[in-house]
Amino acid sequence: MIDSLINKIIEIQNPACVGLDTDFSYLPEEMRGDTATFGGAAQKIVEFNRNIIDSVCDVVPAVKVQVAYYEMYSCEGMNAFYQTIKYARAKGLTVIADCKRNDIGSTAGCYSKAYLGNTQVGGANLQAFPSDMLTVNGYLGYDGIKPFVDDIKNRDKSVFVLVKTSNPSSGELQNLMLANGKYIYEQMGALVSEWGKDLIGKYGYSEVGAVVGATHPEEAARLREQMPHTFFLIPGYGAQGGSAQMLKVCFDKRGLGGIVNSSRGILCAYKKQEYSGMTYYEAARAACLDMRRDLQNAIGKFGA
Amino acid sequence: MIDSLINKIIEIQNPACVGLDTDFSYLPEEMRGDTATFGGAAQKIVEFNRNIIDSVCDVVPAVKVQVAYYEMYSCEGMNAFYQTIKYARAKGLTVIADCKRNDIGSTAGCYSKAYLGNTQVGGANLQAFPSDMLTVNGYLGYDGIKPFVDDIKNRDKSVFVLVKTSNPSSGELQNLMLANGKYIYEQMGALVSEWGKDLIGKYGYSEVGAVVGATHPEEAARLREQMPHTFFLIPGYGAQGGSAQMLKVCFDKRGLGGIVNSSRGILCAYKKQEYSGMTYYEAARAACLDMRRDLQNAIGKFGA
Repeated sequence: MIDSLINKIIEIQNPACVGLDTDFSYLPEEMRGDTATFGGAAQKIVEFNRNIIDSVCDVVPAVKVQVAYYEMYSCEGMNAFYQTIKYARAKGLTVIADCKRNDIGSTAGCYSKAYLGNTQVGGANLQAFPSDMLTVNGYLGYDGIKPFVDDIKNRDKSVFVLVKTSNPSSGELQNLMLANGKYIYEQMGALVSEWGKDLIGKYGYSEVGAVVGATHPEEAARLREQMPHTFFLIPGYGAQGGSAQMLKVCFDKRGLGGIVNSSRGILCAYKKQEYSGMTYYEAARAACLDMRRDLQNAIGKFGA
Repeated sequence: MIDSLINKIIEIQNPACVGLDTDFSYLPEEMRGDTATFGGAAQKIVEFNRNIIDSVCDVVPAVKVQVAYYEMYSCEGMNAFYQTIKYARAKGLTVIADCKRNDIGSTAGCYSKAYLGNTQVGGANLQAFPSDMLTVNGYLGYDGIKPFVDDIKNRDKSVFVLVKTSNPSSGELQNLMLANGKYIYEQMGALVSEWGKDLIGKYGYSEVGAVVGATHPEEAARLREQMPHTFFLIPGYGAQGGSAQMLKVCFDKRGLGGIVNSSRGILCAYKKQEYSGMTYYEAARAACLDMRRDLQNAIGKFGA
């Protein structure tokens, strides 16, 4: 799946994904109305997401759907998650399920079935939340990752393992120094490289990628050097303070190597002065095009 | 919530919880029938769980519901998760949602709303998957934990942070030595102690607990010594190879300090020779009583 994503990035010349972290409060007031139930909120969120997807699907290659923003609306929210990923895939977008799942082997197997594989019920093979890529947390080591790798091999999928996260206190554990002279995030990076070494595609990048925050350029530069075959999912651009200048270290000389996420910066663009007079979905598209320009100015062409 | 749980452990004299990791294949064949849809499987899983809960609710203080086993049955599975936690709480059981959630602060806030707090929709405050306790992963540091701590303070809840997990490759990262002479799992333990230091209840244990696997007695002993105020959620007993002798190091001189999970050993007890002739729920109850005897033989009385 990593080759397909990179193909799209080159075609559209935009290594950006829209984060559908759709909190109900992000919706325009007239759309929220007097909704006061999970079902009502979920329905409106799907409508909002569909309009965003329709409006951006030819200018971005992917969406990242943050499941926490759907779990908080209970079963109805999970249905909105399902409808959103289904619609985005039907529109040709690569869907990254941002779930950061992690558990022991047998349980990680259930998570992999849920998002990347399929679930057997009686004689039927069913898909719970069919996604192309999934974020995972590697704290439990390889047996918690292997079920995902099996589905990657069998079903053309990808994962991104948390290495250096974008949040302010990420260094509390991740930037501690090990006795071997490496930082924990570097060690996690080394594990991720190892886990993905047999899954490298035509552009030289593995199906086992890494989450590397745009807000930590020094660490990102070290990781890019250390992990030349690992594709980065880069959160933290925009609302969290990461800039194109800060994250350009994640890209190789061809302008490849990462996909940059923006969530609130796109979904809530319509609230900004610079996009006034536009609908929320027109503003989202304009913000995607501005983000592309910003990334191009910092990085240049992408793989061309 | 930790004091309520310990009260129940002392009352019932059983520091055990039943893991409702209910894979559809665990159900008796005649119950599965020719079910081949998510909705059908979900309905049967709820029926199975309710019968287990009815049968064990006076001999165990808590259930741990592993969400991966519900996510794999899509939205219908999440509804089964909801029905299960609702039923268990109505029966007086403490519900531990085993979700190992983790993310940056704003997103961790959504997860906390989903499981411990409530979600605002318009003027309504709604509960998505109301649980008493939640497992979380601390790789992102404190700002990914703080939203849970806020709900703990406001709503009498608890969390368990992964420290030393029960799986075979847990040492791949967790047992690396830091430059400061501590193992990573000990450092995570130190962070967990710090995060919970203002939330210590009447038994001397904090609302911020730790997941410490029964399968690693040496590490568990070090952590018990290092973290005298941290309550342990102890997976790995039974099917994963952990024994009462191995995990007794998690308990203090009063016989308090942990709750031991068993999943397949209880849910699938009916398949074992020793419980033949029993229904699955009778076998589950018998297995809970056997587990209590086993823990009592190794540890003694619990807080009495």
